[in-house]
This record gives sequence, structure tokens and C-alpha cells, in this order.
Amino acid sequence: MSKSIYEPLTESGAVALAVRLGLFPEGTPLTCREIGDGNLNLVFHVVDQRTGSGVIIKQALPYAKVVGESWPLTLKRAVIESNALRTFASYVPQYVPTVYYSDESLAITVMEDLSHLQIARKGLIEGKTFPLLSEHIGEFIAKTLFYTSDFGMNQQQKKQLAQQFINPELCKITEDLVFTDPFFDHETNNFEPELRHDVEALWKDEALHLETAKLKRKFLTEADALIHGDLHTGSIFASDTETKVIDPEFAFYGPFGFDIGQFFANLLLNALSRKEHEQAPILHHIEKTWDVFSTVFANLWNEHNVEPYAKTNGWLQDLLHDIFVDAVGFAGCEVIRRTIGLAHVADLDGISDKQTRLEAKRRALQLGRTLILQRDSLRNTKDIFTTFAQTSAEGYLA
Amino acid sequence: MSKSIYEPLTESGAVALAVRLGLFPEGTPLTCREIGDGNLNLVFHVVDQRTGSGVIIKQALPYAKVVGESWPLTLKRAVIESNALRTFASYVPQYVPTVYYSDESLAITVMEDLSHLQIARKGLIEGKTFPLLSEHIGEFIAKTLFYTSDFGMNQQQKKQLAQQFINPELCKITEDLVFTDPFFDHETNNFEPELRHDVEALWKDEALHLETAKLKRKFLTEADALIHGDLHTGSIFASDTETKVIDPEFAFYGPFGFDIGQFFANLLLNALSRKEHEQAPILHHIEKTWDVFSTVFANLWNEHNVEPYAKTNGWLQDLLHDIFVDAVGFAGCEVIRRTIGLAHVADLDGISDKQTRLEAKRRALQLGRTLILQRDSLRNTKDIFTTFAQTSAEGYLA
Repeated sequence: MSKSIYEPLTESGAVALAVRLGLFPEGTPLTCREIGDGNLNLVFHVVDQRTGSGVIIKQALPYAKVVGESWPLTLKRAVIESNALRTFASYVPQYVPTVYYSDESLAITVMEDLSHLQIARKGLIEGKTFPLLSEHIGEFIAKTLFYTSDFGMNQQQKKQLAQQFINPELCKITEDLVFTDPFFDHETNNFEPELRHDVEALWKDEALHLETAKLKRKFLTEADALIHGDLHTGSIFASDTETKVIDPEFAFYGPFGFDIGQFFANLLLNALSRKEHEQAPILHHIEKTWDVFSTVFANLWNEHNVEPYAKTNGWLQDLLHDIFVDAVGFAGCEVIRRTIGLAHVADLDGISDKQTRLEAKRRALQLGRTLILQRDSLRNTKDIFTTFAQTSAEGYLA
Repeated sequence: MSKSIYEPLTESGAVALAVRLGLFPEGTPLTCREIGDGNLNLVFHVVDQRTGSGVIIKQALPYAKVVGESWPLTLKRAVIESNALRTFASYVPQYVPTVYYSDESLAITVMEDLSHLQIARKGLIEGKTFPLLSEHIGEFIAKTLFYTSDFGMNQQQKKQLAQQFINPELCKITEDLVFTDPFFDHETNNFEPELRHDVEALWKDEALHLETAKLKRKFLTEADALIHGDLHTGSIFASDTETKVIDPEFAFYGPFGFDIGQFFANLLLNALSRKEHEQAPILHHIEKTWDVFSTVFANLWNEHNVEPYAKTNGWLQDLLHDIFVDAVGFAGCEVIRRTIGLAHVADLDGISDKQTRLEAKRRALQLGRTLILQRDSLRNTKDIFTTFAQTSAEGYLA
């Protein structure tokens, strides 16, 4: 990592870079605004004043700030992000921003401006439904997983691609914050004092520990395909007609079920934040995501499989079942960590009435536990909805 | 790969290298003999005429010759081999030859002379039993697997080590010759015409295909630990007191059960070549290998585990069970491919009486099938022996 060359961009530097790259004709009147949250990355929005068209210049910062803490974080994540976006674009260009340029030593990615879209989490919290969200994400996941796996790619090239996406620092964040810390009395955890009774029960839950340990081991060892690694609703830009997946800095070769599980979980968290009669469109997204994913994956399997065993009777069904079971388990981990771990979601934290919020969080803990423990016996998304409907305000200990 | 620098060593070049490295005092009277089989590697044995002490200089050739065919084969396997020997030596120096020197561009590894030992397969065929073989191999496997896994090594360093051992070309040989070709009508297969009826039944066996496909997927995707990758009895030097594992050019991050399975399989193949009353010591080796492996692995797990979930009730037992089941399945694949695939074993091919040989091979095919299909229901090595005892001369179709 060329730390000697690295320095943070300024707004004028961002404009100069956009011009140097020929992204705007010379003499274009440009404005530039830094729109990042300043915790992990600088994000410059460079806009042509006459046409309104723009580009995004994203630069990784060499540290992460979370709840006031600051720790060093590899700049290599910018390379992972731009390489992942380019790899995904070769299969599903319609669902990722176009990358115009990247610079490894400056940790910069220059890409398509998506400011006409809204972050899906924000829209869902506002009550929007983004009718095509699940169809698009289901296709995105199916194609990126299939084509980067041993079924859709030359199996030796796959190993070399996996080598390029070895991503220890970012994986560690997930290993700790998703799979470990929330299940132990760890200082990174963050929850309302009223939840302590539930949380302590969870920390002592040996059956839950055993199953979570197995899911963590899958994350640590199973190199099925190039996964996004952080596919929550905050990593998705959407409108009624368009969907774009962003921020794949956590990308690495991981288990098939992980992205699906995180997406399911964040939809479930949103559903938990809604009144019962407003939940249907969100639950429908879960059903549709799986239906589209499994249909597209099956079609690719049947038509473009490079594995000589592909046509073996029963294998595709067994594999899809295993992916579903893993996805349900990963969803359970994500639901729990977003409720009591370091990084929460606005869907739950934003519930202004305290009793309603605590009730939703207790239901989240119970839901997460059941998804992890019962994942082997859930056969389809309807079984997830049954589990969801059965969670009660008594929470974890019910 | 510096192909421009590479050239094959001569005997005088090997002597000059040994002297240049200071492995012998200046003026030592040295003899040198090329003792490799010439198919994959040059192997020079350089010996001090006065003391009899020697060194081995092994050089990879840029091609492989098997049954008259020649195809290019990466020289990088020499780097994999020397790095794997050094990594293993940091955990079990007593079970691998010491590496004195390696040169990547010349594909050379200079290492300890083991000519006082015998290749285990050869000795076992001669009727030797090598009483400590299983104790040593059980410990070798337990320590190399544990210490290179997410349980015995910093989980971020493990990913970087896995990155160094990405080994596409050599993995492909196993993917094809162990897991695929023998199960289809492929030109690499090699078997007596009398076996065709059994072999054709195997090629049509959909249940077997399904389970073999799942085992192959494990080999393709599960990065548990740095495995040897080719741990048959021809990769082991032994005597009554000493055991040394050699030739880890197939090493990569693979599933826990693979090395155990290949070792089991090659012992079973030897047992099949023996008269019934001479099988006991070989079957005992299988039992002992598993007992030592599981005991040593469990001790390391309890005392040196870096994974926060290590103490979770039931996890170690579940994991050992999964490793056993996988090992049994991998053993089944190895038994089948050594009987009808490209690379046979002298244990079976060396049976001079034709009917006895065909009978042993029919039993091998039946045994391999049962190990693959029934692996989930075999609980321990005694169940393997029961399966072994139940195989019959009617073979695959019995």
C-alpha cells in the first residue's frame, strides 16, 4: 500500500480529477460537494451546472469512525470495491454503478452518479415499497453468485479470482460484529437497559451459541462465490423502476447464502418497524427475492453450468435447499446484531415510541433466535412468515 | 514464473549446488545419482562418500508424463511443496524432511535425505506393518489441520496463508482424476475388460453421482486448513520407528477430511490386496489413525483454540463427526479412482493371480460405493470395518 502517495482529496482536487479524466468537456462549469458521512470515506459529488449530470468520486479514509471511536482500516478496501463493482458489472451492469476510473494508491473510485435514486432503507422507512426491488435483487444475487462460482466459471479461474478478493480486515469486522460480539457480553454491544434481561438470556443460550458457531464457520471457510458481503438495504439505491447495489468493500469469496440472508434480515427488520397492515409489501419482497433468485439460478444452472455433475438428478434441489437454510441462519444473526450489536438500523432505532420500539426489538431477538435454531426445518419463505408472525412482545424469553 | 532462467539440473550441477550451499565441507568426495522416475521431477541424491550422509535435490520438470502422455505442468508446484514442507515443519518437524534451500525460478528444493526409510506403500505390499505409522500420521494430520485452521491460527493470517497456497493447476488434477473422470466414461480411465460390466453400472449410478458431486463441491469450496492434498501411502517414508510425509505439491486450503480420507483409502486398498488373516494390522492402522487424530485435535481444541465459540457445548463433537463423515466419503472416491481411474496403486495391480486381482478390484468398487453412499450413517472406524467385511466378490452389483 503506497501510503507515501496517499492524501485525502479536497473539493478542488476532486473537480480537477474529473476534468483530467475527461468526464466533462473542458470549460464545463462544475460544482463539487462532499456528501459522505465522514466516518469511512470521502464522497464527492461533482456536477455539471448546465446539464445537472454528475459523477461520484469516492475515496477511502485510512480509518473508521464508529460511535466516536476511531481505528485504522485498510485502504485496500477501495480496490476490493472497484474490482467487485467491475466484476458484478460483467454479469449485471444494470444493477451496479458504472466505474469510470480507480486509483489504488489514492484509494479512489470514480463512478456513476446515482443521486436520482434513494437509499432503499431510507425509502422503506418512509413507507415506500419500491415494487421492483426484490425482482432486481433476486436477479443480482443469482447472477453474481452463479457466474463467480464453480458452476458458472472455469474452476481454475475461479480460484485466481478468489485470490484477488482475499479480504481479511473487512471480513474480521463481520466475523466480530455479526457473528460473535452480540452473542457474548462484549463492549461493542449497544442496547437499551430495558433489554438487558433478554440479552443476558441470549448470552447464556448454549443451543444458540452452537448453531451460531456453525454459521460463523461457514462464513470463515466456505468459498462458494464472490459475495457482496454487506447487502443490507443501506447498500442499495432504488426507485420505483431502478435498483443499484453499491459499496461492495466487504466483497470476498464466501458462502452462497450470506447476501440473501442479510437482505432478508434487513427486510424483516423493516417489517418489524411497521404496523401489521403495512407489512405485506415487505414480506412479499422476501418471497419474491427467493422466487426470482431460485428461478434465475436454476435457469443458469441448467443452461450454463460448467460442472460435469450439473445434470445429476436432485443436486440442484439439494443445493437450493442448503442455500435457503444457510440464508435463514445468516438472517437470524443479522437480525440479532442489528438489534443489540454495535451497528443498529434506523428502521428499529427510529421508532419514536419507546414501548413500541422495545417491543419491536424483543420480537427481533426472538425472531433471530428462531431463524438460527429452526433453520433446518424451514422449507420456504412462507415458513419464515409463520415464524415472523409467531414472534411475540414477550420477546426472547417467550 | 521466470521461464527464461529455468533449466534442468545435471548431476554435476547438483553437486555444485550442494557445495555452494555449504551442505558439505569443501573438498568432500561427493557422488550424485538421479533417482527420480523422470515423470514429474528430477531427484538427485548427493552423498558424502566418506560418511554416507547425503542430501536430496529435487527439481520440478515443466511437464508431466503419465502413461506415455506428456502435458505441461506448472513449475510453481515446487514453491508450493517447499512452502508446505516449511509450514508443516513449524508444527510437526519430526514428520517432514527438513528443507535446506529452495529456488523458485529453478523450481528446486534441497532437503533432508530420507534414504534410510522406505516408501510406506512398498513396505506394506511386502507385508511390513510399520507399527508407528498410524500414530505418527494421526498426529501429523491433527496438528497440521488444527494449527492452520481458524481454530489454531489468527483468522486473518489464515486468510493470507490460504492466499499463498492457491493452487489451481494441481487441484484440477484431483478434481478430474479423483472426483470426476472415474464416474463417467472418460478416456483417462483404465481398467481390465472383465470389470466393464461393474464400471458401466457405476457410470449409470445416479445416487452415487449425487453424493460424489457433493464431495467434489466440498473439495472445490471448503477452505478449512492447509491440507497435504495427496496423502497416500506413496507420499510417506517409514520405518519401524520413523515416519516422514513428503511431496506436498498438491497442498492448498481444503476440507478437514480430505487427507484422512485419502490415507484411509490407501490402507483399505492395501488390506484388499492381503489375505484375510493378514489384514488386521492394516485395519488397526485405520482405527489408530482416527483415534490419535481425534484425541490430538481435541486436546489442541481445548487448549489452544483462538475461536471465541470453542468452548460451546457439543461443537467439537459435531465437528469431529462431520470430519469423519467427509473422510469416509473422500476415502470412497479414492478407492474407486485407484481401481478404475488413470492412476492405479501397486497394491491392487500387483496381485499376480488374475482372478484374485479382479475379485479385489470388484470388492474395491463395492467398498468405494458404500463408503460414499452410507457415509452419513457410519459412526466410527468399526463401522468402516463392517462395511469392508461385507464387500463381496460379486462386486459392484452385489
